Amino acid sequence: MREIAVVGVGMTKFGERWDKQLRDLFVEAANEALKDANMERNEIQALYVGNFSAGSFVGQEHVGPLLADYLSLKYKPAFRVESACASSGMAFNLACMAIASGMYDIVMVGGVEKMTDISAPEVTSVHAKAMDAEWESFFGLTLPAAFALIARRHFVQYGTKPEQLAMVSVKNHRNATKNPLAQFQFEVTVERVLTSPIVSDPLHVLDCSPVTDGAAAVILCSAELAKKYTDTPVYVLGFGTASDTIALHDRSDITTLGAVVEASRQAYKMAGIEPKNIDVAELHDSFTITEIISYEDLGFCEKGKGGLMIQEGETEIGGRISVNPSGGLKARGNPIGATGVAQVVEIVQQLRGAAGKRQVSGAEIGMTQNIGGTGSTCVIHIFGRQRR
Amino acid sequence: MREIAVVGVGMTKFGERWDKQLRDLFVEAANEALKDANMERNEIQALYVGNFSAGSFVGQEHVGPLLADYLSLKYKPAFRVESACASSGMAFNLACMAIASGMYDIVMVGGVEKMTDISAPEVTSVHAKAMDAEWESFFGLTLPAAFALIARRHFVQYGTKPEQLAMVSVKNHRNATKNPLAQFQFEVTVERVLTSPIVSDPLHVLDCSPVTDGAAAVILCSAELAKKYTDTPVYVLGFGTASDTIALHDRSDITTLGAVVEASRQAYKMAGIEPKNIDVAELHDSFTITEIISYEDLGFCEKGKGGLMIQEGETEIGGRISVNPSGGLKARGNPIGATGVAQVVEIVQQLRGAAGKRQVSGAEIGMTQNIGGTGSTCVIHIFGRQRR
Repeated sequence: MREIAVVGVGMTKFGERWDKQLRDLFVEAANEALKDANMERNEIQALYVGNFSAGSFVGQEHVGPLLADYLSLKYKPAFRVESACASSGMAFNLACMAIASGMYDIVMVGGVEKMTDISAPEVTSVHAKAMDAEWESFFGLTLPAAFALIARRHFVQYGTKPEQLAMVSVKNHRNATKNPLAQFQFEVTVERVLTSPIVSDPLHVLDCSPVTDGAAAVILCSAELAKKYTDTPVYVLGFGTASDTIALHDRSDITTLGAVVEASRQAYKMAGIEPKNIDVAELHDSFTITEIISYEDLGFCEKGKGGLMIQEGETEIGGRISVNPSGGLKARGNPIGATGVAQVVEIVQQLRGAAGKRQVSGAEIGMTQNIGGTGSTCVIHIFGRQRR
Repeated sequence: MREIAVVGVGMTKFGERWDKQLRDLFVEAANEALKDANMERNEIQALYVGNFSAGSFVGQEHVGPLLADYLSLKYKPAFRVESACASSGMAFNLACMAIASGMYDIVMVGGVEKMTDISAPEVTSVHAKAMDAEWESFFGLTLPAAFALIARRHFVQYGTKPEQLAMVSVKNHRNATKNPLAQFQFEVTVERVLTSPIVSDPLHVLDCSPVTDGAAAVILCSAELAKKYTDTPVYVLGFGTASDTIALHDRSDITTLGAVVEASRQAYKMAGIEPKNIDVAELHDSFTITEIISYEDLGFCEKGKGGLMIQEGETEIGGRISVNPSGGLKARGNPIGATGVAQVVEIVQQLRGAAGKRQVSGAEIGMTQNIGGTGSTCVIHIFGRQRR
């Protein structure tokens, strides 16, 4: 397959963005990516957009041409991809295949979500559309409740503790204080997490990623073209995508996310690397338990040892594998459709050595892991400073 | 680019399918496609699904893994693509690029929509999400009203008449009587169309495609593999995709759909053919005026002569270019997310010579043209009995 590089990245401030509409947020991120790549907009041949549920959040489907229009990409093809929280990770994956096919040489991939225009209970209902409407959400199961079940079972099966979950939140909040675009730029303590209100036992509000408005965009091109646009291209070394049952109750073991195991197997194979080669990773910490289980399912540690891995500081910036230096979904924020591409933005900045105060020293290989729903989708990309 | 073939097709009966859920409809179509291709489900490497707004119609986003799950495609990647009425045409296009890239050899592309679980006024509101939420639907513009504006302007500019619009409906209803899977299997007359209730002047209810439940699925593989599965593969000769402004009022001339002109230009070039080489076409007759404008924008006739083209019978089965032998969106039905792939199903059956009573004699080259919203998306594929 033809090799692919990222040559431009852009992202809005994440948070409650009542100053901007969905389309404006996207244009802000996209224009920044164009500027970063020193590129004219007419060089972009196609647009891929990840968006979860603008239809429910702001009454707008057909988001692809809307955003191409507001970005003045006249008549250019515009694809909108939806896969719950993994929407823009999947969009990125499809864009990689389009370049690999030779159909396009240069494309933009973005993600956007505008979530704060409706009330919190309404947001919870929209979130629940990522699960099985007939057999889960119809009966009242919410996304936090599903992950609470997963956490509880992980406690029973592996002895994981609420304090270890809290440590994920503490780390990611600390990292976010070094990220000027993060939604939450304050630190928390284990005690504060454990005394914050319960959302769904054992998950406290500070175990959960927030409701966020925001957008992110990146520009991809064939590896041969990359040096025309930047001195520091970042290459796509490998990827993997997998699905799992839509409903949690159809899995034999809810403490393992099968789609994460399968997608990472594909990605490691394609990149020709092992978990130990990863220097920095943006993982999908939709809830603190999700990050801990991801350590295990990605092979960063043995199954059941995820709690110990956070406790021993192995995933701090500068640890064995730096995880979520951006602050992750927990503290950078989780504008659902934008999250996958925001992860790519961070890894590109890290591999460029341009991540400022949160820079992982000497990072050569990075990973993004983007999950949809309760793990019904997983898409993973592995990036490198050098070509394969 | 690596060449692509269609080796299996399947489709449900279109109509008010209160007997089945969204997932069941899709599984029915998909299983039929597998049977048609003499293929085991584990040979499918990835699933691409077009769906417009299951989030609004049945409270379900994350449709990709849901359908992969119910089709027992364990851990296989599942992509959901949304582009209003062009959703599954765009999904088909992305699947072509995935095979062309070498990433996959065999994939399934499907489309599904379950629209009749909510009331008709609610359906109209969901339809309107395909337009500009902030500048069109917010102020009360509906999709039929937008096409009524287009029709009215076409009357003024080119002298097109209501009777000519009605003739599109008459032709497509007649064709649908020969299609056992069509929603409406009855004929109408010009008089009946013109005396049917007004939806938005000058469009009568019999000028508009209906609200429909249904699913369609096809199996694609690399051209080299095709003969392993079927004696009558149908090859993808070319394609084109384009966007246009989301809002109608931002176009300099609303009687031309710029995305159709641009997408067809790309598709003809890639296939190395001209409009006159097309034997049979499934066009996007969401409204009767849309089919007439499409004749013109696809180069089937001169600009402004679309009304004359239907009047002179040139697009009847066996005419100069047979258009919508399936009955089209008007009479076969328009389950939004399924429509693009349903068009492919028809063209494949026509090129196989397996279209029964509606067979276009000696058809060698066929086209599908799938439009989203008021023409903000257009995706076109050209198919042939022979490889390029």
